[in-house]
Amino acid sequence: MPQKPVVTRSLVSLPGGDPLYLEPFWMKHAASSAVLVAGWHRMSYRFSDGSVISQELEKHIRKVHAIAGNAVTDGRYIVVGAGSTHLLGAAVYALSTGNSSSPAKVVASTPYYPLYKQQVDYFRAVDFEFEGDASLLNNTSDTTSRIIEFVTSPNNPDCQLRKAVLNGPSVRTIHDHAYYWPHYSAIPAPADEDLMIFTISKLTGHAGTRFGWALVKDEAVYQRMLEYISMSELVTSKDTQLRALQLLKVVLEGDARQIFDFAFHRMRDRWEKLSKTLSTSKRFSLQVIAPQYCTFYQKVRGPSPAYAWLKCEREEDGDCAVVLRSANIIGREGTMFNTGSRYVRLSLLKRDDDFNFLLNMIKKLVSEEYRAENMGRLQSIIG
Amino acid sequence: MPQKPVVTRSLVSLPGGDPLYLEPFWMKHAASSAVLVAGWHRMSYRFSDGSVISQELEKHIRKVHAIAGNAVTDGRYIVVGAGSTHLLGAAVYALSTGNSSSPAKVVASTPYYPLYKQQVDYFRAVDFEFEGDASLLNNTSDTTSRIIEFVTSPNNPDCQLRKAVLNGPSVRTIHDHAYYWPHYSAIPAPADEDLMIFTISKLTGHAGTRFGWALVKDEAVYQRMLEYISMSELVTSKDTQLRALQLLKVVLEGDARQIFDFAFHRMRDRWEKLSKTLSTSKRFSLQVIAPQYCTFYQKVRGPSPAYAWLKCEREEDGDCAVVLRSANIIGREGTMFNTGSRYVRLSLLKRDDDFNFLLNMIKKLVSEEYRAENMGRLQSIIG
Repeated sequence: MPQKPVVTRSLVSLPGGDPLYLEPFWMKHAASSAVLVAGWHRMSYRFSDGSVISQELEKHIRKVHAIAGNAVTDGRYIVVGAGSTHLLGAAVYALSTGNSSSPAKVVASTPYYPLYKQQVDYFRAVDFEFEGDASLLNNTSDTTSRIIEFVTSPNNPDCQLRKAVLNGPSVRTIHDHAYYWPHYSAIPAPADEDLMIFTISKLTGHAGTRFGWALVKDEAVYQRMLEYISMSELVTSKDTQLRALQLLKVVLEGDARQIFDFAFHRMRDRWEKLSKTLSTSKRFSLQVIAPQYCTFYQKVRGPSPAYAWLKCEREEDGDCAVVLRSANIIGREGTMFNTGSRYVRLSLLKRDDDFNFLLNMIKKLVSEEYRAENMGRLQSIIG
Repeated sequence: MPQKPVVTRSLVSLPGGDPLYLEPFWMKHAASSAVLVAGWHRMSYRFSDGSVISQELEKHIRKVHAIAGNAVTDGRYIVVGAGSTHLLGAAVYALSTGNSSSPAKVVASTPYYPLYKQQVDYFRAVDFEFEGDASLLNNTSDTTSRIIEFVTSPNNPDCQLRKAVLNGPSVRTIHDHAYYWPHYSAIPAPADEDLMIFTISKLTGHAGTRFGWALVKDEAVYQRMLEYISMSELVTSKDTQLRALQLLKVVLEGDARQIFDFAFHRMRDRWEKLSKTLSTSKRFSLQVIAPQYCTFYQKVRGPSPAYAWLKCEREEDGDCAVVLRSANIIGREGTMFNTGSRYVRLSLLKRDDDFNFLLNMIKKLVSEEYRAENMGRLQSIIG
């Protein structure tokens, strides 16, 4: 057997986005969330009613959105896929299908999630190409090309709520709402866009299950997304659909307050600890997220973001990822998100141990900064 | 909510390839094949050893091949995906990655599985295009383009064992061995090609699970297939991997004799009944599959194919699918496999009820033919 080669990890943000902070919630709900899969059940491509998507699962998806108040599902079709990654590809194919002689231009506002560009570049399809930052097309007079704008709200990496920056008859949007849950953000109003993508990874923490869904207004786009699913893997795994259904059933217990409260408090607590630690630092700064009215909690609430978008403020800390790595903190370089190397994305989604380690390392950096400032020993300590 | 549109079923051969004849086997092994998935287990993208593919599952895949004697796994990397459909796409991308200025030409020998062409056409990638029948490239002097030949053995639809028809420095092959199990074919020797694809759908019948694997000789090709997996859906569902592992454990019980014997006898029995029914017909014929020495059964054995590749022999039965449909038999039209409309593929993989219905309808057709011949009442009966 050949030596196992190392998989190129730089391609995707696997470790950073793994929401293992939710593990204790599922330990507490071990009995109700367990699934028994009989060997002879669900062998077929289809469910017994002939469909390839569980109707029961669809109902539960609509219900969880109704309770969270984060998306309108009336008049929407639902496409399920192997995680939101699968559905992002389906959406780009579906929206670029050719009524134009030139490829669709795919854009996103900087800083943006690296996979959008990586995936579009990887597929090398004649019907679309990645054009970079959305603002570059702002003043274009080109109305012949289809434009596809990824709108990530809350954004990955900086966790700001966002709107599309482009509009016009040739523009189509893909709203990636992976983080638009009470866990990570105020919910000012239910999202009501043409094509919205969600994933169970960030809702329940089950990233390894690979299950996501899209809410789609237009029937033709819905049909083309189904075509992508069937061309890429025939149907979405029924075992995956079964597990997702069971998880959503537990999510919905007690009107979903249990999981939303657990997740929100955990994330808010982490953010407050990190913010407080960095509040006196002149060397490092964090993104500012304004408090906002949340329809789920029916009050103005502060931030509880999934990521810290940290900036190195000093001239000499030009490569912020290197600065942090020397303190044993591994984040995602800002350059991956199409922005400068002064930024690093730090995941706040991991297990308590990982977060506490991060917090202690940050505390150490800040106390070093403090000592250096106060004792004029900066060079000797950094050196 | 909008009216549910009907999914375009013509795109893929979902119903035909669903091996539900294996359901009774799994009912008999209900206890050992059941899987309990705890809500808080396997939430991460990774397994606890940091890998994205279960090492235990890999071991079991190698073991089942060793016992079946149908593929060499030594010196092979294993890529897992969401069914063989997912891996076919990964293989085409991996083999066409660009050292050539012109797109790779993807070919297969007629009759071929429709998805090869549908998938390549659908992705519309600049690096490859579907060229049709492999024999068209046989005499080409073009050695600048990469050529990718799909070799399906046993073939879908006609279940013949096949070899590549092209060779040369620019040719790469993808061997689709979905049906290369003792269930469906003699196993003359272990397959030993560069890139071989298998699926659990045809081995255990769990098509709805969506699990397949590729055995890959070349490390660079392996790496590029992993890149496709990560770009299309990050990682392969861990729930799916868990279920596949449990199924393979049961397959391996008693040196895999139980499932291979069950499946082989069931398929052989069906083939014999169908062959016998059609043996007197002049109107319909079946493919001829030669008996062959099987290393698994250590004897010469007759056919037990997954499909009947039925031909309408008469001039007036030009559209064989229509002829059969008028007798309530729904098969896949020969035209879908790039061959004439005189052929129809009939699935022998379904539940007993479905097969018995098929057999009865065929018996009815044959007895009508017999009566018409003997009583000179052909016109009145067909009319």
